[in-house]
Amino acid sequence: MTKLFMFEKPQGMRDTLPELYQLKAEVKQAVSKEVQQWGYEAVETPTVEFNETVGAASAILDQQLFKLLDQQGNTLVLRPDMTAPIARIAASTMKEAERPLRLTYDAPVFRAQQYEGGRPAEFEQIGVELIGDTSSSADAEVVTLMAASLTRAGISSYQIAVGHVGFVNALLEEILGTEARASEFRRYLYEKNYVGFRHAVDQLPLSSLDKRRLHQLLRLKGDTSILDEAEKLTESQAGKEALSQLRSLMRVLEEDGLAEQVMVDLNLVMHMSYYTGTVFEAYSNGLGYPLGGGGRYDQLLERFHDAEPATGFGLRVDRLTEALGKVKKRPVKDTAVIFSSERRRGALKEAADKRSSGHAVVMQDITGISDVDAFTAQFNDVIYFIGADGKGGR
Amino acid sequence: MTKLFMFEKPQGMRDTLPELYQLKAEVKQAVSKEVQQWGYEAVETPTVEFNETVGAASAILDQQLFKLLDQQGNTLVLRPDMTAPIARIAASTMKEAERPLRLTYDAPVFRAQQYEGGRPAEFEQIGVELIGDTSSSADAEVVTLMAASLTRAGISSYQIAVGHVGFVNALLEEILGTEARASEFRRYLYEKNYVGFRHAVDQLPLSSLDKRRLHQLLRLKGDTSILDEAEKLTESQAGKEALSQLRSLMRVLEEDGLAEQVMVDLNLVMHMSYYTGTVFEAYSNGLGYPLGGGGRYDQLLERFHDAEPATGFGLRVDRLTEALGKVKKRPVKDTAVIFSSERRRGALKEAADKRSSGHAVVMQDITGISDVDAFTAQFNDVIYFIGADGKGGR
Repeated sequence: MTKLFMFEKPQGMRDTLPELYQLKAEVKQAVSKEVQQWGYEAVETPTVEFNETVGAASAILDQQLFKLLDQQGNTLVLRPDMTAPIARIAASTMKEAERPLRLTYDAPVFRAQQYEGGRPAEFEQIGVELIGDTSSSADAEVVTLMAASLTRAGISSYQIAVGHVGFVNALLEEILGTEARASEFRRYLYEKNYVGFRHAVDQLPLSSLDKRRLHQLLRLKGDTSILDEAEKLTESQAGKEALSQLRSLMRVLEEDGLAEQVMVDLNLVMHMSYYTGTVFEAYSNGLGYPLGGGGRYDQLLERFHDAEPATGFGLRVDRLTEALGKVKKRPVKDTAVIFSSERRRGALKEAADKRSSGHAVVMQDITGISDVDAFTAQFNDVIYFIGADGKGGR
Repeated sequence: MTKLFMFEKPQGMRDTLPELYQLKAEVKQAVSKEVQQWGYEAVETPTVEFNETVGAASAILDQQLFKLLDQQGNTLVLRPDMTAPIARIAASTMKEAERPLRLTYDAPVFRAQQYEGGRPAEFEQIGVELIGDTSSSADAEVVTLMAASLTRAGISSYQIAVGHVGFVNALLEEILGTEARASEFRRYLYEKNYVGFRHAVDQLPLSSLDKRRLHQLLRLKGDTSILDEAEKLTESQAGKEALSQLRSLMRVLEEDGLAEQVMVDLNLVMHMSYYTGTVFEAYSNGLGYPLGGGGRYDQLLERFHDAEPATGFGLRVDRLTEALGKVKKRPVKDTAVIFSSERRRGALKEAADKRSSGHAVVMQDITGISDVDAFTAQFNDVIYFIGADGKGGR
């Protein structure tokens, strides 16, 4: 192990400087305002959870978890997502709260990176969970609210792909027979490795009809007419039920004015293995990875307490700011009041007056500056309280 | 190791439920607004840092650090404070930024607890760092700004104790001769273990005069007249210089209208070993532990790059909310629009109208509620869009 430079940060860890911080704050405030207007209440959970409880329920690959030991010998994890911790709260402290329960969060989550591929190991998620409501209105609400949040955050151009893991699971099991094989193909879909998928299909001892059905699955992306084609592929009750749910969801989303934004994507398989029903992902034009996504997870809460239906979405704050692409150079600062110590009192009053009329005012003792020109060049307005005279000058 | 219950959290870790979240958000917004009006710019740093760099510089006791290994075999820590990470930024990414540099942060920090004594292992700090300014105006600014932040947050009644580690160090070394002994006594002061301090003094092979001087140190708390008494105790240049700095700081703070709030406390020794000059702590009446504190740390930045003077403060958000003591029962929620699916469109329009006039509106499909009376009882206003009629009712 080589000695570290003092300025180094762990792999995948980032600082946020003032320019980006400002943009992040605006985006977060916009989303938070929107979800609170829809009646979602904000909660916070600890950064660190038990591996045995939240870690296991989160269904993030083990090698992506940041693990540590506590002083009692328990394995802890830095939370890899927020859905599992909120399920824990909903099933414990908020067990008695009225259902349906609408909660929102804004918090960093952690995923260890094996190689530095520019991917952050810590990133902030802002999202909602709607717990205790099986209705299709709940599925529609979270998609519509995610869309409203994107709009409120200033993302003008986005697409939302909507799928159903129930359909994918039903079709794969119908054709492949075993869960192990189905899981292999789900993984290709998750990784969007369609070449691998096709190759694996060709290797299988299946009828040419079944091979064709699997190849056809990859084409099931587009407008709602895709759902008719999908009908023809599956014979199982579960598959047909999933498509029927998706059909009514798409109808409601169109009613909500999202016809232009939503599309069907029956290849959509989410990372988190706890999803059970409709799933969705949002994309911004020009960004190669999703802004966020979500879906229905009706079996997660029973791991913590009783079974309860739930759905939700999470947006990645870093990708929202990237999609906005507005990070400017360091902005010009508002006002500086430069003073010498004998006139500090007057400077203080001037600064207080300006602040009370909404200005951001730096008060600076002249003896604390090494380069007055460079210092004052940062500000839009500079007021001096120097020497013996009565009033400040500019 | 016994099996954990699914609802358990690691020792010292807490959830924040909606009521407290709301109060926290208000407090944070108030402080953040105040410091930004004073021209401080917000930054964020990663939750995880290298133990060898920020961990070591933070000077938190080793057993209080949460440590983990990364995949390259480096030891990482959950940041135990924010001053060291900001020193890292100031000395690297923001090395070229104009000085004096005013930065602010709002972030959770982590201290492992060996026993569950009700102390949080993760708590949020909001504070400022003023880097590159040796002037006494800088020392005054951070105290005055901390006071203004407390007022803005709604803390009406608080005291700020101001001390100088330079005086304590000078006096202890003058009398005790060795740094090891001085360090033992500093620890008693930090722990406010005055019985232990007195006992240890009595055990030492010192002249009765020197013993009396050490006992007298414990009485050096009160108004500025204490500084005259302190003068008599120390003969060293460093001790006298510290008192002179403190005297002019107290004069400026009184000029800033803080005469009622500030007091001198020459026993004040801060946890963080990097402090080099004036130090201060804020107390709220009725709370047994400080709301926050800070001071001058002129030797921390050279650990990262070049030597630079710096000062700052940090406030604990959990203690601010505790001092406010205003957490009420779950507040009544604003408005619910209850609908049946055939009238969803009308309900959506009603909700949108209400939201655009500033209301928080939950839209709820009636089929998603198991107990309509209990659900609607949470809201101030309930509007129904049920059945075939034309308009909603209440």
